[in-house]
Amino acid sequence: MPSLSLRINLDPDGRIGPGKIELLEQIAAFGSISAGARQMKMSYKHAWGLVEDMNRVFGKPVVATSHGGKRGGGAELTPVGLAVVSRFRAIERAAAAAAEPHISALQADIEAA
Amino acid sequence: MPSLSLRINLDPDGRIGPGKIELLEQIAAFGSISAGARQMKMSYKHAWGLVEDMNRVFGKPVVATSHGGKRGGGAELTPVGLAVVSRFRAIERAAAAAAEPHISALQADIEAA
Repeated sequence: MPSLSLRINLDPDGRIGPGKIELLEQIAAFGSISAGARQMKMSYKHAWGLVEDMNRVFGKPVVATSHGGKRGGGAELTPVGLAVVSRFRAIERAAAAAAEPHISALQADIEAA
Repeated sequence: MPSLSLRINLDPDGRIGPGKIELLEQIAAFGSISAGARQMKMSYKHAWGLVEDMNRVFGKPVVATSHGGKRGGGAELTPVGLAVVSRFRAIERAAAAAAEPHISALQADIEAA
């Protein structure tokens, strides 16, 4: 069954897609940027670059980091980061549901051609 | 205003996005693969590779070419190619309309955070 892959183009040159969203979800799940990066099979440096890119695009931090303490610091999503993830997933679901009849119609067109 | 960029993932490894759709539209508008490629600022070879990729993904040709004649041959979209373009544009419109309230909500979340 065909699926949609969706990116949001934000002014002026920011793009948010499934990769950045999954990175945020992994950071939230593991409480650390480096663990999130490892789950995504990317370097810490690359993951940090993606986080910084999102901070710039949204004008506010999406991840909050803490240093020291018993567990040697960590990272969690800010309210902005949480909103970005949940709204993006909602946008995906809404878009997929709206597209579904058109995708079925396309498949029927192709079979009939 | 944010906009959506959308790709359709087709089995097993075919992807259709805005670039391939615009190429088909340019081929239809100019009646030739080489003129369509020129509009897209891509080589004929690259354009032909994208057309072949779509032929494979949909299992039927999306472009029909003719040789000779007064105007030295040309290209036009097949019924499958026409269906792919019009359904893709319909999918984009439906997805954008469905996503719109969620994108507005995300912007409000970010401003309020």
